[in-house]
Amino acid sequence: MFKESLQGIVDSTDGGLAGVVMDFEGIPLEVYTRNEGPFDMEVVGAEVSVVVKAIQRTTQMLEAGETKEVAFKSEKLTTLIRVINEGYFMAVTMTPDGNMGRARYLMRVCAPKLKKELEL
Amino acid sequence: MFKESLQGIVDSTDGGLAGVVMDFEGIPLEVYTRNEGPFDMEVVGAEVSVVVKAIQRTTQMLEAGETKEVAFKSEKLTTLIRVINEGYFMAVTMTPDGNMGRARYLMRVCAPKLKKELEL
Repeated sequence: MFKESLQGIVDSTDGGLAGVVMDFEGIPLEVYTRNEGPFDMEVVGAEVSVVVKAIQRTTQMLEAGETKEVAFKSEKLTTLIRVINEGYFMAVTMTPDGNMGRARYLMRVCAPKLKKELEL
Repeated sequence: MFKESLQGIVDSTDGGLAGVVMDFEGIPLEVYTRNEGPFDMEVVGAEVSVVVKAIQRTTQMLEAGETKEVAFKSEKLTTLIRVINEGYFMAVTMTPDGNMGRARYLMRVCAPKLKKELEL
């Protein structure tokens, strides 16, 4: 179920490279990489979990409510993160010219399903 | 110059609350808050610098090139970050329904000017 969801998002996004569902300790629950991506998504995810934790501390401190979405862009990669619940998030990585709006939409639609599945 | 730039971006963005130009140690160079914003932008910026550093470590590790942009959304705030050069970044905070696209555009246009100014 998680794999299918990740695959659906990554493959339907122009420029989509890989996706992961992971807990905030950095342990991947599911990873999907399209066509032998250039990097190890488990390593990416573990690093991303550090970022998400830092952001959660920040938003808590600001009393800004729960973190929902994070996006970061560098020269060679764009990474989109969506928090699923208090324990898990998903991240999708794409090329800088990838269709970020589409990935964002698909992740937003998918998150409640994953949440339900995770809390069974 | 920095203040005018920040003010221009924040005031021209629907929902814009505050902006900061800051170094990666978390020391603010300039802060602008519109109408007595609900929070201390120097504190926000210092926290944001932790996030940006975590992201820079991640992108370096991934050999993904330099971090350019970061966005994070929570229930009550959206924060947009743009790296200016290896020492400085700017951050603009807005309400969740704020015009993120406009802020992003204005920050992208403004960054080269700030870069030039910082490197005089």
